[in-house]
Formats: sequence, C-alpha cells, structure tokens
Amino acid sequence: MKVLIPEEGWKKKAFTIIYRADTPAGKLFDISLLVAILLSTLLVIWESLPLLNIKYREFFFYSEAILAFFFTIEYYLRVISIRNKKAYVLSTFGIIDLLSIFSFFVSLLFPQIHFLIALRLLRLLRIFRILRLIPYMEETIYILKALQNSYRKILVFLLFVFIISVIIGSLMFIIEDGSDGFGSIPQSIYWAVVTITTVGYGDVAPSTSGGKFLAMILMLCGYGIIAVPTGIMVRETTRIRRSIKLCKRCGNNDNDGDARYCKRCGDKLITED
Amino acid sequence: MKVLIPEEGWKKKAFTIIYRADTPAGKLFDISLLVAILLSTLLVIWESLPLLNIKYREFFFYSEAILAFFFTIEYYLRVISIRNKKAYVLSTFGIIDLLSIFSFFVSLLFPQIHFLIALRLLRLLRIFRILRLIPYMEETIYILKALQNSYRKILVFLLFVFIISVIIGSLMFIIEDGSDGFGSIPQSIYWAVVTITTVGYGDVAPSTSGGKFLAMILMLCGYGIIAVPTGIMVRETTRIRRSIKLCKRCGNNDNDGDARYCKRCGDKLITED
Amino acid sequence: MKVLIPEEGWKKKAFTIIYRADTPAGKLFDISLLVAILLSTLLVIWESLPLLNIKYREFFFYSEAILAFFFTIEYYLRVISIRNKKAYVLSTFGIIDLLSIFSFFVSLLFPQIHFLIALRLLRLLRIFRILRLIPYMEETIYILKALQNSYRKILVFLLFVFIISVIIGSLMFIIEDGSDGFGSIPQSIYWAVVTITTVGYGDVAPSTSGGKFLAMILMLCGYGIIAVPTGIMVRETTRIRRSIKLCKRCGNNDNDGDARYCKRCGDKLITED
Amino acid sequence: MKVLIPEEGWKKKAFTIIYRADTPAGKLFDISLLVAILLSTLLVIWESLPLLNIKYREFFFYSEAILAFFFTIEYYLRVISIRNKKAYVLSTFGIIDLLSIFSFFVSLLFPQIHFLIALRLLRLLRIFRILRLIPYMEETIYILKALQNSYRKILVFLLFVFIISVIIGSLMFIIEDGSDGFGSIPQSIYWAVVTITTVGYGDVAPSTSGGKFLAMILMLCGYGIIAVPTGIMVRETTRIRRSIKLCKRCGNNDNDGDARYCKRCGDKLITED
Repeated sequence: MKVLIPEEGWKKKAFTIIYRADTPAGKLFDISLLVAILLSTLLVIWESLPLLNIKYREFFFYSEAILAFFFTIEYYLRVISIRNKKAYVLSTFGIIDLLSIFSFFVSLLFPQIHFLIALRLLRLLRIFRILRLIPYMEETIYILKALQNSYRKILVFLLFVFIISVIIGSLMFIIEDGSDGFGSIPQSIYWAVVTITTVGYGDVAPSTSGGKFLAMILMLCGYGIIAVPTGIMVRETTRIRRSIKLCKRCGNNDNDGDARYCKRCGDKLITED
Repeated sequence: MKVLIPEEGWKKKAFTIIYRADTPAGKLFDISLLVAILLSTLLVIWESLPLLNIKYREFFFYSEAILAFFFTIEYYLRVISIRNKKAYVLSTFGIIDLLSIFSFFVSLLFPQIHFLIALRLLRLLRIFRILRLIPYMEETIYILKALQNSYRKILVFLLFVFIISVIIGSLMFIIEDGSDGFGSIPQSIYWAVVTITTVGYGDVAPSTSGGKFLAMILMLCGYGIIAVPTGIMVRETTRIRRSIKLCKRCGNNDNDGDARYCKRCGDKLITED
Repeated sequence: MKVLIPEEGWKKKAFTIIYRADTPAGKLFDISLLVAILLSTLLVIWESLPLLNIKYREFFFYSEAILAFFFTIEYYLRVISIRNKKAYVLSTFGIIDLLSIFSFFVSLLFPQIHFLIALRLLRLLRIFRILRLIPYMEETIYILKALQNSYRKILVFLLFVFIISVIIGSLMFIIEDGSDGFGSIPQSIYWAVVTITTVGYGDVAPSTSGGKFLAMILMLCGYGIIAVPTGIMVRETTRIRRSIKLCKRCGNNDNDGDARYCKRCGDKLITED
Repeated sequence: MKVLIPEEGWKKKAFTIIYRADTPAGKLFDISLLVAILLSTLLVIWESLPLLNIKYREFFFYSEAILAFFFTIEYYLRVISIRNKKAYVLSTFGIIDLLSIFSFFVSLLFPQIHFLIALRLLRLLRIFRILRLIPYMEETIYILKALQNSYRKILVFLLFVFIISVIIGSLMFIIEDGSDGFGSIPQSIYWAVVTITTVGYGDVAPSTSGGKFLAMILMLCGYGIIAVPTGIMVRETTRIRRSIKLCKRCGNNDNDGDARYCKRCGDKLITED
C-alpha cells in the first residue's frame, strides 16, 4: 500500500482521507460516504413505488443529481490521489464505482432503459469496502477470504446441481407429460431447481403419482447434498488457520502458520516453505 | 458471583433461593417460576383465540393479574436480594423481567395497545435462565457461547445476503416489469429474501422466462452460500475447545490454550484463568 | 452379549438365527423378516387408497392376519430364546415389536380406531436393526452414535427456535391484525415455524408491509442459525474420533484415543485418563 | 493408465487426442466435444418448446442426426483406441456414452417413446469427464471423492428420513382424515417428504389444528437433522486430507498418514504409495 501513496502534499492528504479510516477526517469521510450510499439506494427504492414516483418526481431527480455529483467528485479524487491509477480503475470496487456513476448519466440520456437502475444499486456493495476499514470489522475480510478460497469448488458443485436439475427436469417433463407448469423442458428445469435447492415455491408442483415419486427423490437428494458446500467451506475455513510450523529445536510441529516463536520452547521459528 | 451475595440473613436466603438451584427451596422456586411463565404464555395465546376470548374474558383478566402480582414480587425480591442491583437491572434478563411485568400494567391503562402482548411473551426467554441453573443443561451455555462468539460474523454474512437480495430484487423488478407481486422494489426485495433463504412461500413467483432464469441463479446462490454461516459456526465451535491464551507482553490473544510461549514475541505465558 | 445366550440346544440355535447374521440360516431369517416388514408396510399403505380398499378388502385382511401371525411367532421366539428377557422386552426395539403386533390385534376388536395403523408402521424402524447386523453397514451405528451424543443439544436448540417462533409469531399476529391466516396466535406461531425452518408452504403469508419486513428478518434469522445444529453435530462427530493420547517416552501427544502404541516412536501407551 | 495405451501408430495418436488434454489437438477435441454436448442438450430443450417444435421440426431432426453421427464416431474411436476395451465399455462414462447414442437411434424407430429424450440428456454428465482433464479443475475430483466416501452414510441417513416421513405421513393421514391432499397414505408421505426436506411447496398443507401441530414438529425435526449429512461430509472431507496408513502386520487401516508405527500392534509402518 505504501508505494501507492502520492508524494505531493494535498494528494497525500486526500489519499489518507479517502483510503484510510484512522484519522478523524477519514472517519467523517467514510460515514458521509455510507450515508450517501444508503440515501442513493433509498432513492432508487422509493422511486419504484408508483405513488411516490408521481408525486415527488422532481425531488427524486434533483436528489439523485446531487448524489451523482458527489460520487463523481469522489471517484475523481480516488483516481487522482492514488499512485497506481490503473490498479484502482480496474479493481472490482473501481469498476463498481464507475458503473454506478455512469448509470446515472446514461439514464439522463436514455430514461427508458430501466436496466440502469440496478447498476446504481451495485453501489451497495461498496458498504463492504467501508466496513473493511473499520478495525473491529476484520470478520468481513475473513468471510471474503474463505469465500474466495472455496467459490470455485462451490461453483463446480452448483454446476453439478444444475446438471442434475436439467436431467431430472426433462425426465419430469416426460412423466408429467405437459401438465400444468411442465409444458416444456425449460419450465421443468425451473421446477427442478426450485425443488433441489429446497426453495419450493409451489407455483409448479407435480400432479401425477410418478411425478410425485420423482419429486420426492429429488427433494431427498437436495436435502442430502446440501452438505457438500458446507464440507468444502469448513475445509477451507480450517485451512486458513492451519498451515502448521515445525520448531527446529524442540520438534513441536503444532505451531500455527502465523507463529514467529515456538509455543512449546519459545525458540524463534524459521520459515522456509 | 460471590461478591454479589448480601450479608444480611433473610436477603442471603432469598438470594440462594432465587439465584441458585442447589437447594430444595431453590429447585421448588425454579419449577414454580417455570410453571408461571408457561401459564402466562398460554394465557396470552388463549386470549388471542376469538371464541375463547369472548367466553372467558374475566377469567383471563384475573389469572393474568395474579401472575403479574407474582412476577412483580419476584422482580422485587431479585432486586432487593442482590448486592449489585444496577448490574441485574441493566442485564439482558433484568430488562426482560421488567418489560414483561411493565407490559401488563400498561395494558391496564391502554388496553387498545396490542403491541404490549408481544412484550409479555418475551418472558419465555427466561426459560433459558432456568435451564441454565439445571446442572445437566450445560449444553445451553455452550450453544449461547458459540452463538455469542459468531453472531457478529453471521450478522455481516446476513447483511451480505440482504444486499444481494436488494440488488437481485431490483433487477427482478425491472425484468418482471410490474407483474403480479413485483410491483415495486421493496416487494421484489421481499421476494428475493424469500428465495435466497430457500423459504420459498410461492406467494410471489416469477412469471417471465427471464425472471425464472434469474430466480434459478438466486436459488442456487442461496443454496450454495448457506455453507458460509456453518463454516463460521464450526470454526467458532472448535475454537471454544481450544481456549486461547493472552500474552501479557505483546498483547497477542491468539495463542493456543496449550502454548507455553507467546507465538508472536516468544515471551513466557502465565496461566491464571 | 455372550451372557445372553441360552445354554439349552434349540434355544441356542434360535438365538443364533434370530439375533445374529453370520450363519446362512441367520441371513435367511433376516431377509425374510425384511420382506415381511416391507410387505406389512405396503399393505397398510395400499389399504389407505380408497379404490383398492373397497376392491381387495378381504385380501388385505387375510394377508395382514398371516403377517401378524408371523410377527407374533417371531416375537415369542425372540423372548424365549434370549436369557435376559426383561432387557429385550423393555428395550426400544422390544417395545416397537410388541406395539406393532399389538396394534393389529386391537384393530380386530376396535376397527374404528384409525390411530392403530400408524403404530403398525413403527415396524419400519426395525429395518435399522436388520441393517445393523449386516457387517458392511457399520455406518448406521456411527450415525446413531453421533445423533445420540448431540440430540440433547439439538433439542435445546430447537426449543430456542420454537420460543423465537412464539415471540415473532405473536408479534406478527399484532402486526397483521387478524388478516387471513393470522387469525390467532397459534396460527401465527404455525406460520413462524414454517418460516424460520425455511419450509415456507405459502398457505399463510404476510400481506402488510410491516408483516413482510418482519418475515424477512425471521427468514434471514432462520437461514443464519441453521448453522448451529451443524456446529454441534460436527463437534460431536469429530469428538468421537478424538480423545488424544500422550506418549510418555517421546512426548508425542497426537496419538488417537484408541491407539495402543505411539505412532511416532512405537512405544506402548499407558492409559490413565 | 499406461498399460491402456495401444502400441500401433494411429491408434496411439487417437488415444492421446481423445483421452488426454495436454496436446493442442487433445484440447481442441475436448472443446469441440463440449460444444457438441451443449448443442445436443440445447436441441433436446428447444424441441420441447411447443412453438419451436412445429416450426423447425426438420432443422431439429437433421441437427440431431449430425450430432448423433459425430458421437457415434467418437464412441467408436474411444473403443478402438483403448487397449482395455471392456473396462471402458463397462465404466460409468462408457455406459452413459452408449446410452445417449443408443437413445437417438431407437427414437428413430419408435418416435413415440418420449422417455428416450431423458437418456440423451445423460450426456450432460460427460461435462465432468472433460472438466476432469483441465488441470486447474482438480476440485471436481476432490468433490467426487468426498461424495464417493460418504454417499453410503448419506444414503442410510436419507433412508432414515424417508422412514420417518412414512410414519409421520401415515399419522397425518389419520389426523387430517382425508382432507384435501391427505386422501391416502402415499399422498401424505409425499407431503411429509416435502415438509421434512424443508422444500414446502404448499400444494398440500395441513388444515386442522392437530395436523398443524404435527407439521411443526416435523419441520423442526427436518431443520434440526439437516446437520447430520453435514457432520458426515465434514468428517469424510477432513479424513481425505489425513490419508490413512495400513499396517502390514495386524491389518489395522486406521493409522494416521503421519504415523511411523502402527498404533494397534506397534509394528513399523512401511510407506509405499
């Protein structure tokens, strides 16, 4: 992080305020940012309410314009005050920042593109950046780390679940033979996913005996394999803590991976890995 | 706990009966308290049944008055017999005790405030205080301890789940474009939470192909990340057993329970517990 | 088990056939018992189908009489061939055996008591006794053991979930104020349990904004705390394996609880506990 | 695997392309196979859409014929290029390959057998074979391994869940006494499975007080025991890492991977793997 700090005076100050939270100014900035994000979210939500939208149309527009102005300045300062500009712009949070500002200005030009509203809500994810700065919130990082380590395995698992849904769904399409809600394979796959994930809306449910039997198998299956992502997660979670170090002096091999001194004899540990 | 015991005779006796369960009188007190709590809960529930309410209105009123009297005396004795009165009054259980008594007397003055009924049911949580006193029920403490250690992380996780629900919910609002149950973003967020938590009432369900596709992604997502709180919980659960040691010199509180030297600074650890 | 074997000739033979599965006769007995249990279950299920019941009433009656005769003889032999008769009769399986036979004979006298049908299905649980005898099915015992160790903690947890359901349910009763499905507190508690366990039938669903908001909190709550029983279970599961032994010679303290020799130096381990 | 490679020139080349992914030709083959599988799946799905089916009937037929031709050649090459032909033909993937080709040709003769469509989708499972070849996708194998180790225990658990569903389901049949959706025991079992797995369609829901009470017990039960498969899974998952050693002398196969002496008989362990 140190190499990212700009040398010049005011840029360095801006950097400290924006990217850190250990000064009063930095904390104030974070809190006002949090408020702005929540306000902007509430505006999008309120705007979606038919009654409010008609009544306060102008109020909504100007409030959003003010917030967009604030976020644009913030983005500009973020880019200007950091040394490695490219790294920030291309980072996940950098893209989220840009997209959520961008969406407002585009919606000025093309107000009919409703899709842009959702982009603006991406801003909500930025809450986690602010949380990360609060010292006591180290848990956030821990969760993100565990997710980061295991998301690939969980994705493969979800692919597996989806493929089973496709196969059972199409079987169901044949068994139920076009009865309500099973009119095509895509609809049957939708039903299978609703069932295997134990969501179970009930908007589509089997009506024949054979269909109910297959549904029971699928439910039990979904109920049984929910253990798989948990198994993966627990393994990753415990792995973070565990990367054990051996003490050369007393032979104790139960030192934590982050230990610098042997917990049995107090000797300094040498990292080799 | 010892410093809390009052010196005087009858107060000390009351203290032993109320706060402990190792004497016959203490056990009897706990059982009668349990019965009173359950009776008071049943009264609130019965009162809500339209038929019973009209028929036994008077019976309900007098029963509740008697129970309220009993709980008031109990509260008075609890306060009087303990030394550190402030600690009790401001403790979670102390507040629950006061609120549940308070709610009855306020409902006498303002019988139209139905909200007070729910306050009276808070009393049910006191069952756990009684369970805690029964020696074989040490499991309760264990569960509470595990929850206490991990609730912050689980809260951050649930915040994450909720933010995803807000984003996917508003996307759904755009895709379903005001179809039944997706009339506004708050309603769509409600649907998203119902879906991601795998509850799936089915009172709101997507009707368009795009909506069903997004719903499938959200379901699989909810099904996959349910592993996260489990991972957190398992980690906390196993950590309790490990019992961590604090280093007096460098303040590192992540030493294992069996460590003799601090793993960060190598200083000898002193066990006190 | 040895002390339970009777001395006399034919009783000993009957004991080996009934209580063991390591002889061909014993295996044959187990398989025919399994078939009889499944047949008896199918009969109860078929009988419940309105169409079949009218058509094959007599067939059902005689088939059940034959099976009841078979199970009665089996029960008699079980009692007669074991030494410690009382232990068997009062064991869980002994009571299940008796109840399921009993239910048939009572239903002859009082055919209108439908409740007895369910008793007959208790027999299904006996499948696990047979599974237990098959050598490769040691997993069954393992699962039962893990459940046995943790069921108390899980019960306390479920009590906690239920109490939360009672409190939130009655709050919901007040918020929804008697709208469809929330007509009384018991009905609202039913809804709360349906929601917190993530079942979500949708037969009862909140209709007001406040109700939907509370429902979302309850869902997230249920989604978050599902990790608690898992945490308990994982802890119990790993505890079965883990009860580590220390080697006095080399100081290796990572030997399994069932080890007799140190895995590092090969020295004999002395158990003290 | 080495012994499976054929000696001759072109067969060896075909083997490398088909069974391996470390040459450019092998990678190209895998990608085109993946595309063919996805295309074939999309065709089956599109065909099920009533509108598309009528319009593009001929296009669908010829596309499928081309794909079937491709898969037939692939199957032929797989068989011809491997040495141990029997092992491949009888392997899980060998049977899936044959069945999915077979289903197309049979559907030419008997177009009315809709069941064959589902067979063709089995091909989707082959995606995992391709994924397995991609070096970075080692996770797939890991998940399959963990599932393989624990599926038997999970099956016993699901059998247990199903038996509970049968017993509670028939109890519910008696309590609800033929009310809507509980007309027979099989229907009530269907409801019980829907409930205990926390799917909760809501197409069948209890209407009497007794039924609702029993339903609540079943829900809490399902919510509590979902921890069991997780416990099993976590145990298996962590066991894979530990890698167990077999003792040549006493046959004890429960020694830890890092053990040097058998923990049962104290004999020195020889590592071979």
